[in-house]
Amino acid sequence: MFRPEIKVLDCTVRDGGLMNKWQFADDFVRHVFEANTRAGVDYMEIGYLSSESAFCREDYGPWRFCSEDDIQRAIGGLEKNIKLSAMADIGRIDYDDIPLKSESSLDMVRVACYVHQVDKAIALAHHCMEKGYETTINLMAVSTVGPRDLNEALEDLNKSKVPIIYLVDSFGAFYSEDIDALAVKYLERLPGKTIGIHTHNNQQLAFANTISAIIKGVNFLDASLYGIGRGAGNCPLELLISFLKNPKFNVGPLIKVIESHILPWREKIDWGYFIPYMVTGVLNQHPRSAMAHMESDKKNQVVDFYSQITNLMDG
Amino acid sequence: MFRPEIKVLDCTVRDGGLMNKWQFADDFVRHVFEANTRAGVDYMEIGYLSSESAFCREDYGPWRFCSEDDIQRAIGGLEKNIKLSAMADIGRIDYDDIPLKSESSLDMVRVACYVHQVDKAIALAHHCMEKGYETTINLMAVSTVGPRDLNEALEDLNKSKVPIIYLVDSFGAFYSEDIDALAVKYLERLPGKTIGIHTHNNQQLAFANTISAIIKGVNFLDASLYGIGRGAGNCPLELLISFLKNPKFNVGPLIKVIESHILPWREKIDWGYFIPYMVTGVLNQHPRSAMAHMESDKKNQVVDFYSQITNLMDG
Repeated sequence: MFRPEIKVLDCTVRDGGLMNKWQFADDFVRHVFEANTRAGVDYMEIGYLSSESAFCREDYGPWRFCSEDDIQRAIGGLEKNIKLSAMADIGRIDYDDIPLKSESSLDMVRVACYVHQVDKAIALAHHCMEKGYETTINLMAVSTVGPRDLNEALEDLNKSKVPIIYLVDSFGAFYSEDIDALAVKYLERLPGKTIGIHTHNNQQLAFANTISAIIKGVNFLDASLYGIGRGAGNCPLELLISFLKNPKFNVGPLIKVIESHILPWREKIDWGYFIPYMVTGVLNQHPRSAMAHMESDKKNQVVDFYSQITNLMDG
Repeated sequence: MFRPEIKVLDCTVRDGGLMNKWQFADDFVRHVFEANTRAGVDYMEIGYLSSESAFCREDYGPWRFCSEDDIQRAIGGLEKNIKLSAMADIGRIDYDDIPLKSESSLDMVRVACYVHQVDKAIALAHHCMEKGYETTINLMAVSTVGPRDLNEALEDLNKSKVPIIYLVDSFGAFYSEDIDALAVKYLERLPGKTIGIHTHNNQQLAFANTISAIIKGVNFLDASLYGIGRGAGNCPLELLISFLKNPKFNVGPLIKVIESHILPWREKIDWGYFIPYMVTGVLNQHPRSAMAHMESDKKNQVVDFYSQITNLMDG
């Protein structure tokens, strides 16, 4: 038995791009698009929607921008049976640079924000709705937000027109019990809205926490191929699709594109379970220090990292 | 708040040995012993207790046998503030080859069996109890056992004197909901006994399923350093110790020994999350076919493996 309301969103290119500055070739994006389509995935997030004035194309790949030209180059001419999404960060996209939905291949804009940016996020999301897009607001790093601030943010979101609100475990700090409690809170305080979940795998709980959220009634599920994403990465899409019972899903195309396009990246960038990411997850910290350590020439010197972070090393 | 009844057992050498024929140097075992002791781990499983007639020392390392000489060579002279365990497989250890507890450094013998071997396992465990050991019975591969057979096995185990019975997810096939239901069943049908949990990480659920078991009342918890173990490996000890609240636990010594002794093995053997192990986990199969694939020269040809296992490849 499956729950027809459940939608799966692949964030391979968008969250994976945090590890390589979105330097995925057009061919990569096209193959991921085709695999997701064949696998029955509902949405594919193709990158961030950013103004050209916010970042330089010499430093960042095309999926930092997601212009219509970029999208057409990668998937133009292909049949489109999957919805496309792009994420927008507050302050990195000018309203005027967002095309009308009628002039774009994008179906959805997901607005990411920290708790102090909720008002700006709602304004940006409303603007995107006016231009014709589906929208979500993804409230990041909730593991660092106190209950008063969170309740106030949820109250603001509840008053907004934005129909989908994401619970985001940016630091991979949550246990399933945390997800249970937060999912219940989001559902109670956002009546009539759809709740989404986006997890990170610092404690090898990204998939488990996604399942916990599903059980509580969360219906929008983020995942990525082989878990590719910032730091420890995300919920692996192939595990999620194998778990979900909707007969439209097929894991075969995902395994195929993992072999052809994801495993080669695995040789070049280190997402997944590594001790530095585990340490920041356990300590509820942003993974940036762990990412810097993993990119240094001493990535296996995990004691140094742990000592530096805790100043409490024993043994 | 912590639950004082919870005991943690490190199975690094025993389950990790399934990946290298127990060819761990004495120095490796000594460092793991010292790290576990400093970390406050309750038990360390140092290998399998096997008769010399069952295996050849030319093919298998010392931790396939765990003779008192082997143990003394590795940790003789060290202060012993942790209990030592060895696992015994039915048919691979003659009763006469099991020393008296008074002549051994071992504190516990854990008898592993499949459901059709429960009577033999009870007899062997009773024999070990008579010789002075703590004992457990670890009923393996429960994901392949039907409810009638399982209930009968639990009835036999309930009548036995063996005080600790393990719920074992040998194939990494269980979701948390399965663990919840089985833990409740074991606790109900084995009143007065302690229940243990041993998980595999094929679907990245080993840690999450261990937490689910803890919540249901399971008190003996298996884990291994960096998850080293057969195929996808086990629940990572460093994650479990970070989760548990007992102030006697310290994760620092574990991170130290992971750097010095586990990461070097990571270069040589492939435990952890890989697509072939994921496939056997999802399909509830023994990981042997996946292990053979991972040891071949085409380990990244995961589509071949998936096709061979399912004969249903699409996309």
